[in-house]
Parts: sequence; structure tokens; C-alpha cells
Amino acid sequence: MPYSPINLQDKLTLFTEHWSPKIIAQMNDYHFKLAKVQGELTWHKHPTTDELFLVLKGTLRIDFRDGFVELQPGELFVVPKGTEHITSAVEECHLLFVDPAGEANTGDAGGEKTAQDQWI
Amino acid sequence: MPYSPINLQDKLTLFTEHWSPKIIAQMNDYHFKLAKVQGELTWHKHPTTDELFLVLKGTLRIDFRDGFVELQPGELFVVPKGTEHITSAVEECHLLFVDPAGEANTGDAGGEKTAQDQWI
Repeated sequence: MPYSPINLQDKLTLFTEHWSPKIIAQMNDYHFKLAKVQGELTWHKHPTTDELFLVLKGTLRIDFRDGFVELQPGELFVVPKGTEHITSAVEECHLLFVDPAGEANTGDAGGEKTAQDQWI
Repeated sequence: MPYSPINLQDKLTLFTEHWSPKIIAQMNDYHFKLAKVQGELTWHKHPTTDELFLVLKGTLRIDFRDGFVELQPGELFVVPKGTEHITSAVEECHLLFVDPAGEANTGDAGGEKTAQDQWI
């Protein structure tokens, strides 16, 4: 049986659009996704799940109602379930993030920035 | 409220021992763990869960009964639940891996190489 690694940089060459999560791996019922982001998403929360972010390139800012965190490459953060947040990046940022399969990028907020995750 | 990123390289400076997983983050009921490995673990499987590996430094080899995969830095792989495997590294390898909280590094095999995961 052939076994192949999933190379993050190779996968990142397969798309250019921002705020459009791409699924690269599934572990149990969780999706590991890549995204390229610039600008800001929308305030939202995930009522039933934590969400993990790992930055690969650039700087990701996550604002909360009472503070914020900035993530550089090689840094990760877990947003607790139910915590309102908004992700943003001044320059283009590449990130790996983890959600239960089917969880929307905009959580409970919906709206035009809600993306359809795609496998790549 | 203060929010702080979890820096992978900073966390890697906190330990030197091999095959001794260190928990750096929890997302729902999953632990994200760092390990430094060299040599080989033991043949085992995780009957109830997939297991995800992301290599940060060096080369991780995962052998299966019918093949193997080698992961370089920036490459990940999901070992399907129930699949017998053994991880090994000729030179020291640093990796991030993901399991349900409490899952043993040696899965169903147990033995002297079974580690107690510790938070760092």
C-alpha cells in the first residue's frame, strides 16, 4: 500500500484565495485545514467546540471582547468554545487550523464570509 | 484577560528526553503534544482513534505492516485507527502529534516504552 506525506507548503501552492479553508487531513471527526487570510473575518463564536490555530507564515491576530493575541509562524492558540473572536491579518497570513468536520469558519454568525470548506 | 501564544520552539527548549510526549495544548478532548524522538518506539495500534503526526525537525519514519512513510519538516500524516505501526528516527526528530487525551503513546501494546504524558 502506498503511503504519502501531506506537505503543507505543497498544499499551499494549490490555492490563492483568502478566507477559503482547504481541508488537507481528517483525524477522527476533525478536519485539519489550511487557509490564506488577509483583512478580517467577522465576529463569531463556536458554541460547541474549541478551535485551534497554528500560524505558518505572517502574523495572525485574534481579537476577543477583552483582549487579543498575535501569532507568529510556529505559534499556536486554542480559542475556547463559546468565546467570541475575530481573526485578522494586515499582511497575508498562512495558517493551519482545526475544527470538527462541518464546523463553519464563521461559527454562529453566518453571513457572506461563510466559506464552503473544500478538500485539496 | 491576557492571551499568550504557544510557541513551539520555546516549548521544545523545555525538555531533552526522547519518547516522552509533552502536552502543549488541549482542544476539546484532544491533546496536542510535542516529542523528541530517536531510535524506534514499538509496534502498536490505537484501536479507537486516528493519530496525527506533523514533523518539525528531522525525519520521522512510520512503518506499517505493508509499507512505510517518511515525514520531513512541514509534512504530516494521519495513521488510521487500528493500523499497526512503529515510529522511528535515525537522527533526532522533533514532532507535533495529536491524540485523544489519555491515549498512550504505545497504544494497545503497553510495555516499558509507554510514557506518562506531561503538560509543559
